[in-house]
Amino acid sequence: MALSRKVYTVLKYLPDGTVTSPKGFKAAGIHCGIKKAKKDLALIYSETPCSAAGTFTLNKVKAAPILISKDTLSLRTKVRAVLVNSGNANACTGKEGYDDALFSQHYLASTLNIKENEILISSTGVIGQRMPLPKLLNGIDQIVPFLSEDGGLDAAEAIMTTDLRKKSYAVSVKLSKGEITIGAVCKGSGMIMPNMATMLAFITTDADVETDYLQELLSDAVNISFNKISVDGDTSTNDMVTIMANGVSGITIGKGTEDAGIFFSALSDLCKVMAKSIVGDGEGATKLVTVKIINAKSGRDADMIAKAITISPLVKTAIHGADANWGRIISAAGNSGADFDPAKTGIYFDDLAVLLPGYNTVLDEEKALEILTKDDFTITLDLNDGSYSATWWTCDFSMEYIKINGSYRS
Amino acid sequence: MALSRKVYTVLKYLPDGTVTSPKGFKAAGIHCGIKKAKKDLALIYSETPCSAAGTFTLNKVKAAPILISKDTLSLRTKVRAVLVNSGNANACTGKEGYDDALFSQHYLASTLNIKENEILISSTGVIGQRMPLPKLLNGIDQIVPFLSEDGGLDAAEAIMTTDLRKKSYAVSVKLSKGEITIGAVCKGSGMIMPNMATMLAFITTDADVETDYLQELLSDAVNISFNKISVDGDTSTNDMVTIMANGVSGITIGKGTEDAGIFFSALSDLCKVMAKSIVGDGEGATKLVTVKIINAKSGRDADMIAKAITISPLVKTAIHGADANWGRIISAAGNSGADFDPAKTGIYFDDLAVLLPGYNTVLDEEKALEILTKDDFTITLDLNDGSYSATWWTCDFSMEYIKINGSYRS
Repeated sequence: MALSRKVYTVLKYLPDGTVTSPKGFKAAGIHCGIKKAKKDLALIYSETPCSAAGTFTLNKVKAAPILISKDTLSLRTKVRAVLVNSGNANACTGKEGYDDALFSQHYLASTLNIKENEILISSTGVIGQRMPLPKLLNGIDQIVPFLSEDGGLDAAEAIMTTDLRKKSYAVSVKLSKGEITIGAVCKGSGMIMPNMATMLAFITTDADVETDYLQELLSDAVNISFNKISVDGDTSTNDMVTIMANGVSGITIGKGTEDAGIFFSALSDLCKVMAKSIVGDGEGATKLVTVKIINAKSGRDADMIAKAITISPLVKTAIHGADANWGRIISAAGNSGADFDPAKTGIYFDDLAVLLPGYNTVLDEEKALEILTKDDFTITLDLNDGSYSATWWTCDFSMEYIKINGSYRS
Repeated sequence: MALSRKVYTVLKYLPDGTVTSPKGFKAAGIHCGIKKAKKDLALIYSETPCSAAGTFTLNKVKAAPILISKDTLSLRTKVRAVLVNSGNANACTGKEGYDDALFSQHYLASTLNIKENEILISSTGVIGQRMPLPKLLNGIDQIVPFLSEDGGLDAAEAIMTTDLRKKSYAVSVKLSKGEITIGAVCKGSGMIMPNMATMLAFITTDADVETDYLQELLSDAVNISFNKISVDGDTSTNDMVTIMANGVSGITIGKGTEDAGIFFSALSDLCKVMAKSIVGDGEGATKLVTVKIINAKSGRDADMIAKAITISPLVKTAIHGADANWGRIISAAGNSGADFDPAKTGIYFDDLAVLLPGYNTVLDEEKALEILTKDDFTITLDLNDGSYSATWWTCDFSMEYIKINGSYRS
């Protein structure tokens, strides 16, 4: 991690916080006809040029907008806008799909009267179907006049697919020379397990951050938030997280400064809030479970074990059934490939020990049930074998999930 | 693979084929009280000493009977019996659980009047609870008198946990000097996805095979059957497959001979029949799906892609819903980490092309639906990128699975 964690004063988690909470950003969200009736097109826009950075899916199969936005960011030049549609992923659509995406980028550039490479594009939805380009271009015509400083929540709504809740956040923090704000909208998907999340997040800030440093801060923040629910290399065709920093606050985040530490802490906390909101709103999810691995031999071992537990359908169904089945948890850990000694391992549900080292079972079924029926609790594995740790998040696996995914083509 | 595939004459897949179909084997299955009412103890016994071999779980968390049976087989001495209980896994039970298992091995040895190291033991069931030893020892007293040449099907029943169907098979094949028989019982579990299968199979044969060669043949057979539904390194605390060869047929399988090729083909086919029966009887499963990867750059790439597709909940729920969602299939392949070019890939449901190279969609929804509503079909990915292939098996993911695993503690 680039920076150690800083204690900082959250001025406020803004109640209707969103991408337009930082100064100088406008946004809009409309229905343009890609989906039948719901909002399906979002635009986030900065009045002034922004430093920008992004992290993208590592799936071998990359959607057209992923290729184009990666190329755009690789120029390391300033960015002004992000265009996002939901309902069609523009993935596995070949040369034609790529040209559609490129054309939409160019069309928006001419509509906004900015350069093509000042625009990032993003899509989510069904794979393998051509983008209905006339609808999208018509949507671009329609959405630009709606850009407003109150448009963030509309944008949050327009990027949703099977999400039940709009996901929109912002935080203001005090730095040495004044206040800056970071805002964001995101969408989740599926069960947010490796192999299947289509996860999008768009972050804005009125801080001034140099491009390469912004990329470093974003990558580090994503690594301890979104990547703990859906791992690098295990992502969908369309996943992306971007950040735009327009500097309108007049406050510069200098590399390695105390302010940078605070900025990073606020940014990564915002990413964690988003990651947890995505898990908590997973398809059919009824519980948000934090999985903590402590005292591991290495960070890699801790991550491997946490990942194995958070993706295990047997663990996730046991959680759904409020079954204090620690055997499934340690068995999943044993399959992770990580280096640890099961006989040294302790398992806790919140503060309740259910297994102590030496396979010493201390399960109080009644107390365990009390914890497991809550909608938010923590499973901790204490490996007693080192000093590294990892925190991941997952949700339960319900019948509703099967219902949604047996019928929704995404 | 040790041997190339041989065409052989199956004399018969025996209708009530089982572990007692080969000459010289007896078996029994009884209820001894580990489970509430169902049969929970099986014994397979050879009148004469057997060469024996086994493959065991690679989970870091190994049940006590796994440790003991591995040790026993590592002696490379002759074996006479396998004792299997269901209802209690004797896993995560520490030194006490290990001593319980060892004691049951010794107790059976003295009851049968054979040596301890002539006995393999195996358990399946709930993790983390002490074995009710008095019940098990009492069961040993009770089961020995029931040993009979007709007892194979009782043994098959006694090893079941959440299996809906008894799994028992045998095949007789003609070799150059006469006929030999291979019999087997097995049990499946869970969804038979990596991380969760508790899979047991016990094979018997009246052929005479030298111990080290028997191990080689078994390992190769397991690798193209059971390991294509539940991968090495991704197995439960209790998985094991054993084979006992008593030579009572008087026919020796000489290493590298034509007969060995036939024996291996019959053995591996029997293992595939078992593997498929386990998948087809997966918890809540309604469909058996064969996943074939062809023309891959390497066998490893083919396996990685097949595994990623067969474990993907999104693919499995789409199969359940008969949704011709090839996008989820190629996205799962893209996440596998394998080296392939998505743009060269073709996807077929049985013989129906749904995607041709160059992202050329040719989906006939009606015909696809016809195939996907069958209870047994094949998904083929033609990577057009090499000459290697892999065949795996999986099942769909139904609401029934959540129901079973949200309530059953296993």
